[in-house]
Amino acid sequence: MSRPIAERAFQDFYPDDFSHCYGCGRLNPSGLRIRSFREGDEAVCRFTPGPHHLAVPGFVYGGLLASLVDCHAMGAAADAAYRAEGRAPGSDPPLRFVTASLRVDFLRPTPHGPEIEVRARAREVKGRKVVLDARVLVRGEECVRGEVVAVRMPGTMAGG
Amino acid sequence: MSRPIAERAFQDFYPDDFSHCYGCGRLNPSGLRIRSFREGDEAVCRFTPGPHHLAVPGFVYGGLLASLVDCHAMGAAADAAYRAEGRAPGSDPPLRFVTASLRVDFLRPTPHGPEIEVRARAREVKGRKVVLDARVLVRGEECVRGEVVAVRMPGTMAGG
Repeated sequence: MSRPIAERAFQDFYPDDFSHCYGCGRLNPSGLRIRSFREGDEAVCRFTPGPHHLAVPGFVYGGLLASLVDCHAMGAAADAAYRAEGRAPGSDPPLRFVTASLRVDFLRPTPHGPEIEVRARAREVKGRKVVLDARVLVRGEECVRGEVVAVRMPGTMAGG
Repeated sequence: MSRPIAERAFQDFYPDDFSHCYGCGRLNPSGLRIRSFREGDEAVCRFTPGPHHLAVPGFVYGGLLASLVDCHAMGAAADAAYRAEGRAPGSDPPLRFVTASLRVDFLRPTPHGPEIEVRARAREVKGRKVVLDARVLVRGEECVRGEVVAVRMPGTMAGG
């Protein structure tokens, strides 16, 4: 499967005031700045952990994996919601999601070094809620399984 | 309740080769280096997010909150396991835990700026497993609820 490097990521469509997130904000210079793309019916994010992103030497920090699953799922939720409404990504009014619930099961230790692939798929798009299944893979082996409930951003967070 | 600043944190008892974790390793200079203490029947960690730890301006990044819950719960699991065996913290052989499953429910946006308090309590200590309930509070208001399943570190991770 070819890698859609030249495409715009889901996060590229986020409004500027929604782009300061430590995990996925393109305007947060200290953050992870993950980028997520559609590949077939899945959303895919690839990320190489830094040397400091350790749990124990040789294995990736679980909090980083939870963060990747979380932010990637929010991008995938927005993409799924735009598609469910038959709208172009990023079209107004913007569809912004935040995490209501995040669950990650660490199936096996995630080896540190290689690129990580995070895959997500919207299982349910209903009203203001999107439920997603996620997986973290290294060299094709599933290391983490995630379930994320995304909800439309409440008014109390906008411009907070 | 007085703050046990002068006491040794749970993480101070971790063996050196278990102290490189991005979230709680005292030997990871780029990490969060959280410290957890016992207060009554709860384990407490206090942490002030950095200016870059944002979700959107004004609110704390959820991945950071998940990371704090995760690492703090691992410290609390070790503490609970030592106590369940009637042993002094850090005594040999060391009891090391890793996360099998992490769930965080974001009850409301967590305001960015004030110190965060993470509280955890072991609900079950059984065999190689500890199940913990966690809460994240800001100025006494509960913002996040967590459930964490900790398991004794598998041999495949030790010295990995």
